[in-house]
Amino acid sequence: MSESFTPVPFERLRAFIFAAFERLGLPADDALTIATLMAEADLQGSEGHGVIRLPPYAQRIKAGGVNPRPDIRVVQERPGMALIHGDNGMGHLVMARAARLAIEKARVTGVAWVGSQWSNHAGPASLYARMPLAHDMIGLYFAVGNANHLPPWGGLDMLLSTNPIAAAIPAGKEAPIVLDMATTVAAFGKVKAKAQRGEMMPEGWMIDREGRPLTDPRRAAEGFLLPIGGYKGYGLALIVGLLAGTLNGAAMGKDVIDFNHDQTTATNTGQAIVAIDIAAFGDVEAFKENVDALVRDLRGSRRMPGVERIWLPGEQSHAKRIAHARDGIPLAPALLRNLDQLAGELGIAKLT
Amino acid sequence: MSESFTPVPFERLRAFIFAAFERLGLPADDALTIATLMAEADLQGSEGHGVIRLPPYAQRIKAGGVNPRPDIRVVQERPGMALIHGDNGMGHLVMARAARLAIEKARVTGVAWVGSQWSNHAGPASLYARMPLAHDMIGLYFAVGNANHLPPWGGLDMLLSTNPIAAAIPAGKEAPIVLDMATTVAAFGKVKAKAQRGEMMPEGWMIDREGRPLTDPRRAAEGFLLPIGGYKGYGLALIVGLLAGTLNGAAMGKDVIDFNHDQTTATNTGQAIVAIDIAAFGDVEAFKENVDALVRDLRGSRRMPGVERIWLPGEQSHAKRIAHARDGIPLAPALLRNLDQLAGELGIAKLT
Repeated sequence: MSESFTPVPFERLRAFIFAAFERLGLPADDALTIATLMAEADLQGSEGHGVIRLPPYAQRIKAGGVNPRPDIRVVQERPGMALIHGDNGMGHLVMARAARLAIEKARVTGVAWVGSQWSNHAGPASLYARMPLAHDMIGLYFAVGNANHLPPWGGLDMLLSTNPIAAAIPAGKEAPIVLDMATTVAAFGKVKAKAQRGEMMPEGWMIDREGRPLTDPRRAAEGFLLPIGGYKGYGLALIVGLLAGTLNGAAMGKDVIDFNHDQTTATNTGQAIVAIDIAAFGDVEAFKENVDALVRDLRGSRRMPGVERIWLPGEQSHAKRIAHARDGIPLAPALLRNLDQLAGELGIAKLT
Repeated sequence: MSESFTPVPFERLRAFIFAAFERLGLPADDALTIATLMAEADLQGSEGHGVIRLPPYAQRIKAGGVNPRPDIRVVQERPGMALIHGDNGMGHLVMARAARLAIEKARVTGVAWVGSQWSNHAGPASLYARMPLAHDMIGLYFAVGNANHLPPWGGLDMLLSTNPIAAAIPAGKEAPIVLDMATTVAAFGKVKAKAQRGEMMPEGWMIDREGRPLTDPRRAAEGFLLPIGGYKGYGLALIVGLLAGTLNGAAMGKDVIDFNHDQTTATNTGQAIVAIDIAAFGDVEAFKENVDALVRDLRGSRRMPGVERIWLPGEQSHAKRIAHARDGIPLAPALLRNLDQLAGELGIAKLT
């Protein structure tokens, strides 16, 4: 952690976000749900999806682009699935509700799938994939991203987003395995971070309109993100978009609203969560022991020259969660200034 | 199609495979199920997973490595899921049964997930993902591959397979969208094909034990396949293996049997199929129209210089299915010789 970063306790960060959303007109219990999830994003090191999003969320609510008092409701339902209408509320509320319902249903049916329509950006995908873990269930999560940065393979028109996939698998003594990935080589937030730091991007993140490598992040608007594995990542982004968007009657393709440039149009964001009850398949403890053994085999693999450690997906965010809970969540000076400004605008106490 | 390839009608190819499996001791209805699926693999251009596999399958059955008369049965069940014990039968039988059950259950629960244990190689993933299409359902398929060619990211020990993912989405007037992909940049079969043709591989398919690009396919044993998107593909291969293998009590990690080098040990292959009933989420015709519109938007995108056409996943295999049904399935001379030899060994009529 850099010296100039300020460590903020989880509880204080959550209380600050809670106060902001209450002041923005959300009911207290909704404000608390969102504040908890956003602070958890920072806690696990998903800093691009945590409190850094509070100023743009506030701006969007004030502009009327998000409904502060949504009537989130089930509009389609069968024993193993549901479709939730988010009524243009904050995505955190919609997906927390979706995850609860998927877990409840999976207890009965073994596997349950809950999709959303008229939802919004919900923070890091892993937050929702992780929710079934506490119930000895596996969680899967798919979402349509809120801006299109990806053309079809060989194309120039940005018709697809970085549609993320997340999966969380419980282990026994080891940390759960948690994968949270964009279907592009780099998420667009990483490009923006490189630009802010004045650094160049490695080849392979983006190409220009002639298909040449694009490495200057300040020229990002002249090119496109590259999907993982070329046409395979294009296929994955498309399938995720069909499952999380089209199937739910949510935006996909050219209907996706770029939430960076449009503050008022409802995004009709689609997401989906799947809960899988491990007990339906067999003995839960035996499963966890098998996951532990697999984790140790992978970690114990002989390594390439120069590789210090083999990581499992989610292991680094697990370590951050522990460290940040103990030492506080490190927030950058520029972020703190933005949050101070927001506190002034909203008339709430500053964070630090 | 090269002049030296022999076009074989689908029905004749199926009859040949059927005769082979009957002679190998399988019940007639099982032989027909497998023959149909294997011939369909060739029909859609999945030639690495079609009749080319008949000689190794026959060898494995004769060696006692596959049970010709399995008692395939449900061993775990809830309304939205089942786990099928394949009794070491041919994977085609196990997964055809799994797909039927998933479709039947999804009619009631909306979404259903059926996994397998003690199954075997089942041919191309897309065959099973496509099965729900005829019922206006979406199909997803995951499998543990039958040989480990992938180390954990940064590692040297090959503990993971190219664990494939397939997804099939019905369209209206357009071809269904069908993705079928290994989680590595290239499947190992492509490496073997390059070696057979005496060609070099492009950089990015494989690396050697020092992490340097490996482009000579004859040196494949000295290196590893690369996962798509680096650590992301490693994560995907791992998650697919946990869902299709570990969750089902099937082989994963170091327990995977390399079916190229071991003819007798039961592979305990794990697979999973998910059926999603579109009608549970909303109007089926509206969904299909939305898929059609999306397909046309993607296909109609402006293109990079030198790109003649933008393809949707599954569009090329759809075209092959139509062409091969009309013109016959082109089989290579070397393959025909192998099949003639097998026909002689089994005492059945030759294919051509």
